[in-house]
Amino acid sequence: MEKTIQWVNNVSRMVDQTVIPYEFKYVDIKTGQEMFDAIKTMIVRGAPAIGIAGAHGVCLFAQELASLNLSRDEFVAKLTEKANYLVTSRPTAVNLRWAVEKQIEVIKNSQSDISGIIKELIENGIKLENEDIEINKRIGDYGAEVVPKGATILTHCNAGALATVGYGTALGVVRSAFAKDKSIQVFADETRPRQQGARITTFELVMDKIPVTLITDGMCSYFMKKGMIDMVVVGADRIAANGDTANKIGTYTVAIAAKYHNVPFYIAAPLSTIDTRIKTGDEIKIEERSHEEVTHINGKRICAEGVNIINPGFDVTPHELIAGIITEYGILRPNYNDSIARAFEQK
Amino acid sequence: MEKTIQWVNNVSRMVDQTVIPYEFKYVDIKTGQEMFDAIKTMIVRGAPAIGIAGAHGVCLFAQELASLNLSRDEFVAKLTEKANYLVTSRPTAVNLRWAVEKQIEVIKNSQSDISGIIKELIENGIKLENEDIEINKRIGDYGAEVVPKGATILTHCNAGALATVGYGTALGVVRSAFAKDKSIQVFADETRPRQQGARITTFELVMDKIPVTLITDGMCSYFMKKGMIDMVVVGADRIAANGDTANKIGTYTVAIAAKYHNVPFYIAAPLSTIDTRIKTGDEIKIEERSHEEVTHINGKRICAEGVNIINPGFDVTPHELIAGIITEYGILRPNYNDSIARAFEQK
Repeated sequence: MEKTIQWVNNVSRMVDQTVIPYEFKYVDIKTGQEMFDAIKTMIVRGAPAIGIAGAHGVCLFAQELASLNLSRDEFVAKLTEKANYLVTSRPTAVNLRWAVEKQIEVIKNSQSDISGIIKELIENGIKLENEDIEINKRIGDYGAEVVPKGATILTHCNAGALATVGYGTALGVVRSAFAKDKSIQVFADETRPRQQGARITTFELVMDKIPVTLITDGMCSYFMKKGMIDMVVVGADRIAANGDTANKIGTYTVAIAAKYHNVPFYIAAPLSTIDTRIKTGDEIKIEERSHEEVTHINGKRICAEGVNIINPGFDVTPHELIAGIITEYGILRPNYNDSIARAFEQK
Repeated sequence: MEKTIQWVNNVSRMVDQTVIPYEFKYVDIKTGQEMFDAIKTMIVRGAPAIGIAGAHGVCLFAQELASLNLSRDEFVAKLTEKANYLVTSRPTAVNLRWAVEKQIEVIKNSQSDISGIIKELIENGIKLENEDIEINKRIGDYGAEVVPKGATILTHCNAGALATVGYGTALGVVRSAFAKDKSIQVFADETRPRQQGARITTFELVMDKIPVTLITDGMCSYFMKKGMIDMVVVGADRIAANGDTANKIGTYTVAIAAKYHNVPFYIAAPLSTIDTRIKTGDEIKIEERSHEEVTHINGKRICAEGVNIINPGFDVTPHELIAGIITEYGILRPNYNDSIARAFEQK
């Protein structure tokens, strides 16, 4: 697979994830506001991928502002404002803020004129793209070490190539493990409401010829009790300093089921997903998403009129349910306060 | 609501549950084979309702055989064969077998000629219909005693009026509690793959003006952690002598989450759902259902081609996760081997 998001000819070219598995097509995002909307409506999704989208978005806003005949100071002020606006498109995944802040640093540190700043922002965006793939391969290789021979790995949502620039975090672990051992297989949770597991994870794995079984979200315990699941690996949207991890809604339920059946439950994520500014998961803002995601599937209503809806996009899995956090600096183990701090020193 | 399944003018009239919430219509089932198919394709569903459907099915087969000029012995032999065939339409819910066996007893004990036997079968079918509603009201009233004031009750699948002849088992508890306390409310799991919670439970509760919030199956733990769920009540398809309970797939996952959060988890079911012939849940046959239930929603594919599917229709919640089994003879508590045996003596 090519990069799923990439800076090409002064636009951000990305896979439109809303139409998978029915279509596989790239769309060009040409303005900062289009990028804000693409992130919000999940044309691009997955914590690392929306990080890159944020970095590209800053480039797009910069290109637009360049045509306004602003002074350099005005340009920098306006662009910083637009960059901070981009971060508000989705509140939970920290990678978006992380990548936008990387771009704000570029702006602050630049000695160049406006066109020079834009060039530096674009270079930095491309550097982040390439680093993302490298980081995922390192995550995959570290993770593969703890995958038992012939294992069946359960995953929730999509933390694959399509959630990143390429290779994936949780599915990076699967890819690295499969490269060494063709007898592993994946169970993919459907992941209602938006069905990223059914739509995107099955699509990616079938494409890579990695055996995948689709199950509905309530089924995980049934298969764990039967001894059919050897480990769980999922991605993350934000990890607190103590290891508490926000990920797609439903992850916490899987983690509890895994604990009950003594199935090891792993997070796979780059350090950029760890937000050391927050001590615990209680501080993570959970995005409340549109009610239609729950009440409708493929445009058709699935429930009675008059029903109430609450649609949190994420939940927080407390650190005590997590066997390890697989990062590009190795697998962090409890006590996470210590292991996370050490990883950041190493970086 | 009228009876959801009822013997009328020599046919079985039932709500077509496959088209709810889009349509609310009754269909007339006129032959035994039509009844077999109606049970298998879930036009009628819910353990108590398919019990009644089985009883009606025996009446339909009897009417058909009566036109064949058989001897009384031949009639009895053929009808018994057809009755046993009906039981194979769905393997997990024991109420189907229980009700068909009640009809086989009527046949065996009858002193009448063929037309007399048919009359007795129909009378017994109608008696079972009426008893079902009475039993559910008793279940509801016992259950309401353990519903805290202002409680939010989580339920999975549909164990309501539409799963029974009327009133419901788990939703019978809700109805009785709501009659006493208008401040209670329900959270309904969507219940993939067939979405009985989204389609049927929300429909029933909105109709009765009982506040209901629809959630996806992975969300329960999120709301439990927030202290927003006070108890769980679900129905059952088969309960073993030790209290292990088969119910709709996903129930076991909810029960584990409830245990983790110290939320009491109740089963509501008539004694006819308890199969004292089996010692534990390990002996319960789990129905494997069509793959399309997982891969398609409303006729549209939701996942990649080439994915594997396993689709167990039920799972078994072990007795140690169950706070009580609410029956028409009161709430059975652990040790279930003893409390179930005592309830059957009382009967």
